[in-house]
Amino acid sequence: MSLHEDMLQMGDRAVAAARALALLSSRKKSTILEGMAAELDTQRATLKHANVTDMEAGRKAGLSAAMLDRLQLTDARIDAMIKGIRDVAALKDPVGQRISRWMRPNGLEIHKIRVPIGVIAIIYESRPNVTADAAVLCLKASNSVILRGGSEALRSNQAIAAALQAGGAKKGLPDFSIQLVGTTDREAVRELVQLEGRVDLAIPRGGEGLIRAVVEQAHVPVIKHYKGVCHVYVDESADFKMALEICENAKCQRPGVCNAIEKVLVHEKIAAQFLPELAARLTARKVELRGSDAARAIVPTMKPATDADWYEEYLDLILTIGLVKDVHAATAHINHYGSHHSDAIIAANEAAQKAFTQEVDSATVYVNASTRFTDGGEFGMGAEIGISTDKLHARGPMALEELTTYKYVIWGNGQVRK
Amino acid sequence: MSLHEDMLQMGDRAVAAARALALLSSRKKSTILEGMAAELDTQRATLKHANVTDMEAGRKAGLSAAMLDRLQLTDARIDAMIKGIRDVAALKDPVGQRISRWMRPNGLEIHKIRVPIGVIAIIYESRPNVTADAAVLCLKASNSVILRGGSEALRSNQAIAAALQAGGAKKGLPDFSIQLVGTTDREAVRELVQLEGRVDLAIPRGGEGLIRAVVEQAHVPVIKHYKGVCHVYVDESADFKMALEICENAKCQRPGVCNAIEKVLVHEKIAAQFLPELAARLTARKVELRGSDAARAIVPTMKPATDADWYEEYLDLILTIGLVKDVHAATAHINHYGSHHSDAIIAANEAAQKAFTQEVDSATVYVNASTRFTDGGEFGMGAEIGISTDKLHARGPMALEELTTYKYVIWGNGQVRK
Repeated sequence: MSLHEDMLQMGDRAVAAARALALLSSRKKSTILEGMAAELDTQRATLKHANVTDMEAGRKAGLSAAMLDRLQLTDARIDAMIKGIRDVAALKDPVGQRISRWMRPNGLEIHKIRVPIGVIAIIYESRPNVTADAAVLCLKASNSVILRGGSEALRSNQAIAAALQAGGAKKGLPDFSIQLVGTTDREAVRELVQLEGRVDLAIPRGGEGLIRAVVEQAHVPVIKHYKGVCHVYVDESADFKMALEICENAKCQRPGVCNAIEKVLVHEKIAAQFLPELAARLTARKVELRGSDAARAIVPTMKPATDADWYEEYLDLILTIGLVKDVHAATAHINHYGSHHSDAIIAANEAAQKAFTQEVDSATVYVNASTRFTDGGEFGMGAEIGISTDKLHARGPMALEELTTYKYVIWGNGQVRK
Repeated sequence: MSLHEDMLQMGDRAVAAARALALLSSRKKSTILEGMAAELDTQRATLKHANVTDMEAGRKAGLSAAMLDRLQLTDARIDAMIKGIRDVAALKDPVGQRISRWMRPNGLEIHKIRVPIGVIAIIYESRPNVTADAAVLCLKASNSVILRGGSEALRSNQAIAAALQAGGAKKGLPDFSIQLVGTTDREAVRELVQLEGRVDLAIPRGGEGLIRAVVEQAHVPVIKHYKGVCHVYVDESADFKMALEICENAKCQRPGVCNAIEKVLVHEKIAAQFLPELAARLTARKVELRGSDAARAIVPTMKPATDADWYEEYLDLILTIGLVKDVHAATAHINHYGSHHSDAIIAANEAAQKAFTQEVDSATVYVNASTRFTDGGEFGMGAEIGISTDKLHARGPMALEELTTYKYVIWGNGQVRK
């Protein structure tokens, strides 16, 4: 079979599996998920053996130490995958929920019901645990899944996917509910995201290059998880102590993640007082500071910031600082240079708070809190398949509910249209 | 300026307009919409003059009588556009609505708030009234809009868009809230749907060719309104009188629309009784009947149906009829051959009703009612920008709420992540 025929067959099988999955009860799905968790546990040796082969090939191919670390499957990581499955099994099933219901004057009763999306394609890089995490979240919402992981993790991913499918099948998981693309051919990604009528949604997870490639090739809907260029704006009405703590937390607590801040904007009226305190606090945490001309006039030890700095996601202990004349200038700056992910205002003034929350066009907008809370777990969703920087269908942390759609079921007693 | 630069400028202007629109109050938007309605009334002569030029060019270009009819702007059609604007002005504003709200253990209060999508591109064909209908719905939900109509209606569309923008501007509509692509160059569509970061959503409205072209070129999210291959399944438990009336209504009341049925499936146990009655009823309404071999064994006067018949949207007085062995065979057939738009079961048996509503993977699923009710107006939405056959973001009739997204606004008092 050609690659094209291969992918069409995968798509057809995924559609058939999705139809069967849509009819499973919540209890049945929990049993299946437990079967998967148990099988991962049973197949530990197989998983680690496959991973050793990937690791050896990775070392030969010259992967960096950081990449090799992400690739490695340890017992602790297998434990985490197993725990993750059991956590998801315990979450509330979104499928079948009645979102709303109303009656029309002609007696038709319209029910808007939450249903699975159908077939979801996940395209991701390096970490093999994504194979389990993503598949299990999709399945809990009764979707079948086609996985396409990074080539360096192919054997590990195959072992995990096979264990999940086998463990689930023992408890009644429909065939082909979890499929993994078995080739490292890059054309397979193109084929996958052009499977209109078979794949209902593609979710790329990884670097900007991967996401751009998927967006440019896709004919099916894509939900993107782009970078996070997040801001804190410190208003003239801010409590300095609170502002300092939030800036430090949002920058330093885990600098390598998308909801860490990369920029701080300070109201010009308080800059002379606040900036030296901020600089001292962050310098003590080994943050490299870059400043606009106005900011450097107050703290000359900062490096000069270029225009490119304002667009950049450092994912590192680097922060760019600028001054703004008021909250509106701050929101205009954030909307222009930011990535519509997570932005915060520190302010006591209610008018400034309101202007900020209304004007900033981001998935999550914070008042007097750290941007680091943009996370499915922190939101109380219990899990997360990513953080959408798109506006369509899902925005911000994306969990089980966002892996569903709806249909209208309409109950009549013979109504015809006049 | 090159076409590319032109389109980038349109995109930038649309983004700026969207930011301003997002801050307008409901009352202000109503005043603006009334200004638009009044201006269309004032500019009647200008609109009709532009339309005469389009009509003359259309006649010379050999457009069919049906196409010329769709192109024509009469006083009645201008009246309908004006009434449409006033109807939309009177609808409830979805923007700013709090969808949900919850408190986290750390004291963070999370509000999920309905907000505009931003910039919406509408790509459509022939009927100039779409220019007003689509623009006004987008605006009511505080979105700016970039319109790209059919080349044959360019002058009419330009006159309508100019009147809307001018009439709105008198009441405070931000500049460039309504823009129309002024070139008939086909490359403009490609440029438009590749304006990532500027255009948030593209909605193609028209034939399958237009929709496919948009889907294949787009880098921005697209919501599609594909064809409607709708079914009625007549179960063995059906009330015959109800089934006959619904089949007749769904086929004949307005055969040229997407929610009219194209196929009827009949339970084989009742076929010998029911099919002759159905054939008589529909033949009297001049419907051409095509049947499967099994159906023709009962009513031999039907033409033989080919496999292609089952996929086809006739939009005409033609109906294909087949037999199925039970409700599950009916739903499998519908999921395979249908277009996931609107499908109905006629049945008294509750188990059959339940199986049908659960198994059919369509935007709207009816029990004992005509499929013709799939419509924003009939659903009580007050308006409609289309009927989505997609599953992401919006499914089924798409009105004001579906032209919004949400953002999370999170209220804290200094929370940092531990």
